[in-house]
Amino acid sequence: MHDVIVIGGGPAGASASIYLQRSKLDVLLIMKDHGTLEKTGHIDNYWGFSDTMDGKELVIKGLEQAKRLGVQIKEEEVLDIEKDLFGEHKFTVKTDKETYEGKTVLLATGQSKPNLRVKGFKEYTGKGISFCAICDGFIYRNKKIGVVGNKKFMSEELETLSNFTKDITIFTDANELTVDVGDYKVCHGKITEIKGDEVINQVITENNTYDVDALFIAMGTPSANDFALRMGAIIDKNNIVVDDKHMTNIEGLFAAGDCIGGLLQIAKAVSDGAHAALAINKYVRAL
Amino acid sequence: MHDVIVIGGGPAGASASIYLQRSKLDVLLIMKDHGTLEKTGHIDNYWGFSDTMDGKELVIKGLEQAKRLGVQIKEEEVLDIEKDLFGEHKFTVKTDKETYEGKTVLLATGQSKPNLRVKGFKEYTGKGISFCAICDGFIYRNKKIGVVGNKKFMSEELETLSNFTKDITIFTDANELTVDVGDYKVCHGKITEIKGDEVINQVITENNTYDVDALFIAMGTPSANDFALRMGAIIDKNNIVVDDKHMTNIEGLFAAGDCIGGLLQIAKAVSDGAHAALAINKYVRAL
Repeated sequence: MHDVIVIGGGPAGASASIYLQRSKLDVLLIMKDHGTLEKTGHIDNYWGFSDTMDGKELVIKGLEQAKRLGVQIKEEEVLDIEKDLFGEHKFTVKTDKETYEGKTVLLATGQSKPNLRVKGFKEYTGKGISFCAICDGFIYRNKKIGVVGNKKFMSEELETLSNFTKDITIFTDANELTVDVGDYKVCHGKITEIKGDEVINQVITENNTYDVDALFIAMGTPSANDFALRMGAIIDKNNIVVDDKHMTNIEGLFAAGDCIGGLLQIAKAVSDGAHAALAINKYVRAL
Repeated sequence: MHDVIVIGGGPAGASASIYLQRSKLDVLLIMKDHGTLEKTGHIDNYWGFSDTMDGKELVIKGLEQAKRLGVQIKEEEVLDIEKDLFGEHKFTVKTDKETYEGKTVLLATGQSKPNLRVKGFKEYTGKGISFCAICDGFIYRNKKIGVVGNKKFMSEELETLSNFTKDITIFTDANELTVDVGDYKVCHGKITEIKGDEVINQVITENNTYDVDALFIAMGTPSANDFALRMGAIIDKNNIVVDDKHMTNIEGLFAAGDCIGGLLQIAKAVSDGAHAALAINKYVRAL
């Protein structure tokens, strides 16, 4: 079992890994891609570089640095994180290739991607629009459920929801469906509006109108927020809430960088990583 | 008049200057040397560098970066900072070469250097040992005063103290005296102990014993803490106290990096600089 599993290889995740490794903990860093910096061409304001830096190049340098200092890095996609139900200090992290165990987990996957940008989305969030099948699925037993998504993440949510109802429609929001969804109805149109009264009751696409009692969002791949939410962590305005030790309300689950909000700058994410690492080191050594 | 005068060219000061310059403020950075990093050979834990970095090299890169983005940099030694007494938003910064004016000042001069490491020093700090002639000199009118130091900073304190008493002894603590001190008594020996009862009453050197009612410390060159103290800023356990906007209790006087305490790491200082810069930008634009 690893001491820490760090999820995310950007400034916060790599910075934390470097500090954790140097404090002689067993660290595993799991990363999917180079995050938002991958598309950031010119970085001038991160101290210590006399020339303009390319975002992706900087992330790669940070990972090389972590690797040089001994951090184990896996380029895999995290699909699920579970905390041991019996109160053990153990998290199980399932990726598209393997399953790993860690005493603690640090979420450092950057800012949560924007969700559906359509009329009614904000209005009905929490009023029938949900981001977590395991949290809210049971409310809609035998009701009409819509689920938005096109990848593995969606099909995992679908599987959970299928325990509660068979009346499920998948909305790909005009993205290519990359998973097998069996006999479920699929709407391939772009979503244009969400309607309702007190609560949601319709999803409007460019071609059609669908009645729903609930709409579950599972677009793209799960974000740090999605994992955090599933474990019962408190989220405030799309940011994971942490204490001054970077720990969420879930014991042993830490978060750093853009996913906890604040200044969305490399400098802040790197500093977050260092602070979180020191807190995790203390925490693990006291277990 | 500059919008901001940043004092200190290390991670916090340069990072802040870069952000301030990019927010189109008129920034002047004044620095004396490369600070504590000058002597730090191997830096491995600041994110973004695949190879080990040399501290001084890193500081120089940060300054080149600031310069490239348009920050004006002066290599001068700050001797005094004064806030306008009539409530104007104006600070006057006096260096060994020039006098500058700024609407705000950011102190980023690193951690305050250790003071006298002798028996009794801690015990009598605040009990006759003082760090500010302007703050405490008047208490010792016509008393026996010692002043510790060997440079310009000491002679400035001496000038202030001479308004209150003529019975002053200068202790160089075995450092070379680089300023003219006229007819004042000078003790060139190494200080070995501070003695007293309720309050200080003796300075012991390797060769002699001196009776004093007070001892003013003005060793080397003034630190951020020394400036802050003189302006009435609150210092706690050797750290300058700032609010969540990095402002001290003195309106318009900000501080960032090691001098405000917390994690003494580059990552934290750089992040401090970014945060302070954003707060200063808001503050200056609202003046």
